[in-house]
Amino acid sequence: MEAKYNELKTRLAEVHDLSKIGWVLGWDQRTMMAPQGARVRAEQLATVGRLAHEKFTDPAVARLLDDLRPYEESLPYDSDEASLIRVARRDLDKARRVPAELRAEMTRTSALANAAWIEARKTSDYALFLPHLQKAVRLKHQYVECFDETPEVYDVLLDDYEPGMATAEVRRVFAELKKDLVPLIAAIAERGREVSDACLHGHFATDKQVALCHHIVEHFGFNRAAWRLDPTVHPFASNSCTTDIRITTRYYEDYLGPALFGSMHETGHGLYENGVSPSLERTPLCRGASLGLHESQSRMWENLVGRSRPFWQYFFPKLRETFPEQFAGVEAEGFYRAINKVQPSFIRVEADEATYNLHIILRFELEQEIMGGQLKLTDVPAAWNARMKEYLGVEVPNDAQGVLQDIHWSGGMIGYFPTYSLGNIISCQIWEKAQAALPGLDEQFARGEFMPLREWLRTTLHQHGRKFTPTETLQRVVGGPIDVGPYVRYLRAKLSDIYGLSAN
Amino acid sequence: MEAKYNELKTRLAEVHDLSKIGWVLGWDQRTMMAPQGARVRAEQLATVGRLAHEKFTDPAVARLLDDLRPYEESLPYDSDEASLIRVARRDLDKARRVPAELRAEMTRTSALANAAWIEARKTSDYALFLPHLQKAVRLKHQYVECFDETPEVYDVLLDDYEPGMATAEVRRVFAELKKDLVPLIAAIAERGREVSDACLHGHFATDKQVALCHHIVEHFGFNRAAWRLDPTVHPFASNSCTTDIRITTRYYEDYLGPALFGSMHETGHGLYENGVSPSLERTPLCRGASLGLHESQSRMWENLVGRSRPFWQYFFPKLRETFPEQFAGVEAEGFYRAINKVQPSFIRVEADEATYNLHIILRFELEQEIMGGQLKLTDVPAAWNARMKEYLGVEVPNDAQGVLQDIHWSGGMIGYFPTYSLGNIISCQIWEKAQAALPGLDEQFARGEFMPLREWLRTTLHQHGRKFTPTETLQRVVGGPIDVGPYVRYLRAKLSDIYGLSAN
Repeated sequence: MEAKYNELKTRLAEVHDLSKIGWVLGWDQRTMMAPQGARVRAEQLATVGRLAHEKFTDPAVARLLDDLRPYEESLPYDSDEASLIRVARRDLDKARRVPAELRAEMTRTSALANAAWIEARKTSDYALFLPHLQKAVRLKHQYVECFDETPEVYDVLLDDYEPGMATAEVRRVFAELKKDLVPLIAAIAERGREVSDACLHGHFATDKQVALCHHIVEHFGFNRAAWRLDPTVHPFASNSCTTDIRITTRYYEDYLGPALFGSMHETGHGLYENGVSPSLERTPLCRGASLGLHESQSRMWENLVGRSRPFWQYFFPKLRETFPEQFAGVEAEGFYRAINKVQPSFIRVEADEATYNLHIILRFELEQEIMGGQLKLTDVPAAWNARMKEYLGVEVPNDAQGVLQDIHWSGGMIGYFPTYSLGNIISCQIWEKAQAALPGLDEQFARGEFMPLREWLRTTLHQHGRKFTPTETLQRVVGGPIDVGPYVRYLRAKLSDIYGLSAN
Repeated sequence: MEAKYNELKTRLAEVHDLSKIGWVLGWDQRTMMAPQGARVRAEQLATVGRLAHEKFTDPAVARLLDDLRPYEESLPYDSDEASLIRVARRDLDKARRVPAELRAEMTRTSALANAAWIEARKTSDYALFLPHLQKAVRLKHQYVECFDETPEVYDVLLDDYEPGMATAEVRRVFAELKKDLVPLIAAIAERGREVSDACLHGHFATDKQVALCHHIVEHFGFNRAAWRLDPTVHPFASNSCTTDIRITTRYYEDYLGPALFGSMHETGHGLYENGVSPSLERTPLCRGASLGLHESQSRMWENLVGRSRPFWQYFFPKLRETFPEQFAGVEAEGFYRAINKVQPSFIRVEADEATYNLHIILRFELEQEIMGGQLKLTDVPAAWNARMKEYLGVEVPNDAQGVLQDIHWSGGMIGYFPTYSLGNIISCQIWEKAQAALPGLDEQFARGEFMPLREWLRTTLHQHGRKFTPTETLQRVVGGPIDVGPYVRYLRAKLSDIYGLSAN
C-alpha cells in the first residue's frame, strides 16, 4: 500500500510541478516578459496545461486512487495521506468530466473574447463584446452539462472557485449583507459629513513608495529569502512553492492608495501560501482551500490590519518621514479617516470597503439571471446601470465604466465574483476568533508587532492548505458556517465612528 | 504525408515548449528567484526535463520519422521540412541511446558534485572534489559506451556541444593556434611596453553602467519590445522564443570592464537567437547550430566590434559623458589600448583575448588525457600548474585559482571547453567574410551604424538556426572548414600595433 501511495504521490507531484510552472510563467509574463514574447508564451502555457491534464487523467492515477481506498479509510481523516487521496479523487472526478475538445474550445474562445473585450472597453462598445459573451455563456452551459445535476445551474460554476458552496447559501448571505449595507451607505451619504482623502493624492515618488511598501510588508513576514514584490499593471499574487512567494503591486505617482493597500492585500495572499505546511509541498494540497478563504486573508491584512487606527499609530510617523511635505499638515487620525472614506463610484476595483460588496452582489445577481435565461445578454448593460443606481445611487456614464469594466467574463470566469465578498465576510469571522484568542492585538499593532497574528493564522488556517473543504476549513477555524454578522458589526462600528452615525 | 508531417511538428513543438520553459525557469532562478525557491525549482526543472525526454522518445515520434523518410527525400535538403525531419532523426538517435537510469544518475551526481565543488573552491581543497570528479568521469565513460565506437572516446563528449566535430580536428587547429600564440604572448612580455588599464578601475556607479550598457547594445539591435538585460552573478544568455531574448551581465562598481564587454558578448548570443527565421519558431531547429558557432557571435560583438578602434571612435564621447571624472585625462586611443591589454593570469574568465585560448587549450589537453587514462585524477592539479607555467609563464598560487576555478567539470560538462576557442577562431573567419561583403564597415562603426553587419549576419548565418550541421553551416558562411588563419592574423596585427612588435 505504501508503495502505491508513493507512486500516487510521485505522479501528483509531477502534475503539481506543471501547475506551478504555469504560475511562474504567468508571473513572468505579467512582470518581466518583453511584449513580443506573448504569442509563444501562450503556446507554452497551453502545453503545460494540456500535459498537466493528460498526466492527471492518466488511467493509472484513477487505478491507484481506487486501490488506495482501504488505505485511506485506515488513516485519520485529517492525516496528510488520507487528505491527499480524498482531494485527488475529488479533483480527478471534476477533471475527467470535461472533454478535451470542450476545454480547448473554452481556451480558444476566451483568448478571442479577451482581445475583443480590450477593444470594446477602449471604445465603450458593448455590441463588440456581445457575440463573444454569447459564445462564452453557451460554452458555460455545455460545461455545466458535463456534471451531475445540481439544484441550480450556477452551483456548478461557483464550485470551481468556492468548492462545496451552494448558490442558495451565497444568495441568503448576500441578501443579509445588502439589507444592512444599502441603508448604511445611504445614511453615510445623508449625514453629509466631510471626510477628505486629499492627502492620498499629490506627488509620491515611486522609489519612496517601493521602500515604504517593503518596510510595511516586512512587518507582516515578507522577507527577501523567500519573497519578491514587483510592479505590474493588474496586481496579483503568485508563487512557485511555499518558499518562493511572488506578490505584485502598482505604483501611481499621483495617488498613494493603490500601492500601499495593494501590497498589503497581496501579502495576505502570500502569507497563506507561505504558511502551508512544508509536508504538503509538491502535492495538490499545497495551496489555499478556496478563493473565498484566500480573499479572507488578503482582505484581513489590507483592511482589518492595514486600515485600522493602531496600525497607523505605529506606521504614520514612518509615512510622514517618507513623504514629509505631503503629510506636513496631516495627523494620524485624519489619515485614518482618509483611507476609510466611503464614496460610491462606478468602478469595483476603486471601491471602498463598504460599497465594494454592492458591486459584487450586482454581478452575482446578473450572472445568475444570465445563466438562468431570465436576463437576455442584450439587456445586461441596462440592468447593470439600473442596479448601480438602486444600490449605490450612481449614474453609470458609459459601458466602459459599467458592464465592460471587468476582465472576468471575457475569460469565461462566471461564478468567480462572489468569492470577493465571501472573503470579506469570512475575514471578519476569523478576525473575531483571532481577537478572542490573542488578547491585546490592537496594542501589539500599535507597537509594530504583527507576528503573533501571523503565527495564529498559520497554525489555525494556513498550514492545512487544501486538506479540508472550504466548509470544513471554516468550521475548524471559526466553529461554524459562513455568517455575515461579524462583518456587518465591524463595518457599522467603524463607519458610525468615522461618520458620526448612531451605532446600532 | 502532410498530415504526418504536421503531427510530427506538433509533437516536436510540445517537446520544444518544454525545453524553452526549462530555459525560462533557469533564467528566473539566476536573476529573479528568491533563494529559498531553489529546492523545489530543482524538482520542477527535473520534471520538465524528464517530460521533454519522455515525449521526444515516444515510439510514435520514431514511427513518424520512419514514415516521413520518402517525404523528406522528395524535398530540397535545405527546406525547413526536410531539415526538421533530418535533425529530429539525429537528435532522437542520440536521445534514445542513453538509458533513463544513467541520465538520472548523471543528474544526481552533478547536483552533489556541484555542491562539493563550491565548498572545495572556497577552501582550495582539491581532495574534497576528487571523489566527485572520479564519479563524473566514470559516468562519462558509461555514457560514451551508449554510442557507436568513435576514433577517440572524447569524440562522443565533444559531439554533445559541437556536433560532428572530431577531436583530431580540434587538436590540429589548437596545435596551430598554440604554435602562434605562445611566442606572440612571450614577445609581448619581453617587449615590456607599458599598456595601462588603470582607467578601467575606479568608481563606476551601477546605474550609470546600466544606462551605458543599454545605450550600446541598443545600437546592436537590443530593443525592449523583445529583449531584457538583467544583472546576475555568472552572466549568460537565455530566451523563451526568438522574440523574447534575455541577456544578463554583472556590474562591478570598481571595474568597468565586465559589464561593458559582458553585455556586448551576451548581446551577440542574443542576436543569433533573435535572428533565427520565424518559420522555425517552436521547432528543434530554433536555436544556434552549435556552441562554437554561438560563441563566434558573442565574441564577434564583444571583441571584433566592441574592442575595435572605430567602435570607440563613436562611443568614447558617450563614455566620457557618462563618467566624466574617471575619463578626464584619457583619450580614445588610451582607452582602446587599455581594453586590449595582454596580461597572463590564472583565471580564464578574466583573461584577455590572446591568453584566453591557452586556458582553453590546457583544459582540452587535460580532458583528453583524463578520459584516455594517461592522466590520473590525483595528478590533475600538478599537471594543470605545470602547463600554466609553460603556456602562460605564471605560477598558480593554489587550486582555487587553478584546477578548481571552473564550474564545468562539476556539472559533468567534459568536452565543452573547446567550443570557447572554436568560437574565437570561427568569429574571425566570419569576420573576414563580412568585411569583404560589406565594404566600409569600419567607417560605419565610427558613425555608430551596426545594422548592416547585424543584417548580414542574420541573413547569412542566424536565420538558418539549426537546419544545418555546424560544419555545413560554416561551409555556407565562409566557404570552407574551420581555419585558424584569420584569427591568428587578426590577433597578430592588432597586438603588434598596440605593443610595437614587428608585424609578421
